[in-house]
Amino acid sequence: MHSLLQSEIHAQPTTLTHLIERETAHIRTIAATLRARRFSYALIAARGTSDNAARYAQYLFGTLLGLPVALAAPSLHTRYGAPMRFDDALVIGISQSGQSPDICAVVAAARAAGAPTLAITNVDGSPLEAAAAQRIALHAGPERSIAATKTYTAQLVALALLGFALADDQAGIVALTQIPAAVDATLALDAMLAEIAQAERGMQAAVTIGRGYNFATAHETALKLKELTYVPVEPYSAADFQHGPIAMVREAFPIIITAPHGVLADDLAELAQRLRGLGARLIAISDVPAILAAAQHAVPLPQRVDERLSPITAVVPGQLLAFHLARARGGDPDAPRTIRKVTETT
Amino acid sequence: MHSLLQSEIHAQPTTLTHLIERETAHIRTIAATLRARRFSYALIAARGTSDNAARYAQYLFGTLLGLPVALAAPSLHTRYGAPMRFDDALVIGISQSGQSPDICAVVAAARAAGAPTLAITNVDGSPLEAAAAQRIALHAGPERSIAATKTYTAQLVALALLGFALADDQAGIVALTQIPAAVDATLALDAMLAEIAQAERGMQAAVTIGRGYNFATAHETALKLKELTYVPVEPYSAADFQHGPIAMVREAFPIIITAPHGVLADDLAELAQRLRGLGARLIAISDVPAILAAAQHAVPLPQRVDERLSPITAVVPGQLLAFHLARARGGDPDAPRTIRKVTETT
Repeated sequence: MHSLLQSEIHAQPTTLTHLIERETAHIRTIAATLRARRFSYALIAARGTSDNAARYAQYLFGTLLGLPVALAAPSLHTRYGAPMRFDDALVIGISQSGQSPDICAVVAAARAAGAPTLAITNVDGSPLEAAAAQRIALHAGPERSIAATKTYTAQLVALALLGFALADDQAGIVALTQIPAAVDATLALDAMLAEIAQAERGMQAAVTIGRGYNFATAHETALKLKELTYVPVEPYSAADFQHGPIAMVREAFPIIITAPHGVLADDLAELAQRLRGLGARLIAISDVPAILAAAQHAVPLPQRVDERLSPITAVVPGQLLAFHLARARGGDPDAPRTIRKVTETT
Repeated sequence: MHSLLQSEIHAQPTTLTHLIERETAHIRTIAATLRARRFSYALIAARGTSDNAARYAQYLFGTLLGLPVALAAPSLHTRYGAPMRFDDALVIGISQSGQSPDICAVVAAARAAGAPTLAITNVDGSPLEAAAAQRIALHAGPERSIAATKTYTAQLVALALLGFALADDQAGIVALTQIPAAVDATLALDAMLAEIAQAERGMQAAVTIGRGYNFATAHETALKLKELTYVPVEPYSAADFQHGPIAMVREAFPIIITAPHGVLADDLAELAQRLRGLGARLIAISDVPAILAAAQHAVPLPQRVDERLSPITAVVPGQLLAFHLARARGGDPDAPRTIRKVTETT
């Protein structure tokens, strides 16, 4: 059975290659302009999938630039009429459609206050593009599925290009050019994830866990699962999960850990062991042997990539799992109930 | 049956009165010191319940001071060794115990970089207090329950005192002195929440929803439910919930909406109607007739308080619901499984 969503998931290597080819030089120009401005933190306005891309930026901009990232609370602008200050802020709006009025309101207010502003959007000619002084286009082509996949990984690549350009890190940009091939290799897990989905089709509730760069992946995997399978799945950082919510874990409680190799791998391996000891049923998306060994379902990431870029490949198994689990539960992944492609909140 | 947790929930009017009496003058002094420093945003480091207090500060400091609030990503400091910048930041660490090494690391790095730093802690003589240049004490006495309740509302009151003092808003401080009595009135809902817990004791998964100031309340209510009842309960802002996760809602899906009167009441009333139309089973904690009328379980907040202070009273029904639901499900609210009082993450 043909699926729009599945074809968009599999289009990602092509989409990302296209984005890197089309936008790298332009992003270098944007970075040069921004480096001429003084800012001491970034404020990102986004919702849904785009907000998960913002979470990635929080770690990438932190490690590359030492730059703290704040996630905007749009209702302060749209509902409370708060006299928000934008001194010393670089303000970024991220939205596939560029339509959501609350995101536009934050960026427009920041620009009026004199802050440097940037829109990251896929659809051309949107209100968010008009609101911002500069724009990065995602070049992903129309996204027809309601659940965002190729535009999410494109947002990550755009943010990585921006981070490396701001840090003047040429090696990072070179590493990024190898990511589309790594995404392609990861797509070979499709059949394995279809089998796991079949085995786990009775899932009632679950938790996703990531940390550091892949905190974003935990969030995005949970969001795809909720949108497509309707199962309540809450994302956690490995640390926050231990500050209370770990009490939920009982025999056979499903937990999806996304933990590519990197500085947090030992922490995650220890947590995986602890969760297994509490009886959890683990799906581990990783290339770390100790983490894979702790899991009932080991999903081995086929290519080791630069940790800073690992969220771009590591989310792919989560996308595929959500797609197959939706089908295994009798749903239509191309037409999830209740939601539409463009959500306009104010 | 005597319960430590229940007695700490009921101690809140006394605890908060004591905090206001003991700490207001000191917080005015701290605010005067801080006003002499230049900062253009606040960076708050916290985990678990304390992180929910930070979410409250995001709205309160936004409306009172126009001050953006960023929530720190501690692993940037402790794991990635990122060269984080603290220029133009006011850095606040919030922790009941003041023990978590990652929170201390953020505050210590900020102080070393020359940023103004502040610790908000309950236990005297903690590492976090030592790490920060200034400290607000919560004066809540020992918190013996594993689930934090009286120290959470004390954190909210401390942040409100700080916000009003920084804004030189004397009327706000006067409004705050009336809050302990409003919390006391809210505690009269205890028996009603015991009945609701009995009716809902079969809960498998749920969602909490709030927006604006009470986004923090949605988070804290969900955390109490998870810690004490082990039911997966995910918190959402009313806006984010509509960007995808609303697809989860099916017939009889339990949703707890906390929505005191205020500028967002109409939005929440509209969402409550929409969720009811999708078949959700609503528990509404509100003093807005249209929201209460949409709910299967209406929990009427007895006293209308200043919207900016409403999270201090509106969390109380959530605390009581979590307590009674734990008992109704056969758990021991004083000794939830797996977790301990002090969680030290690094």
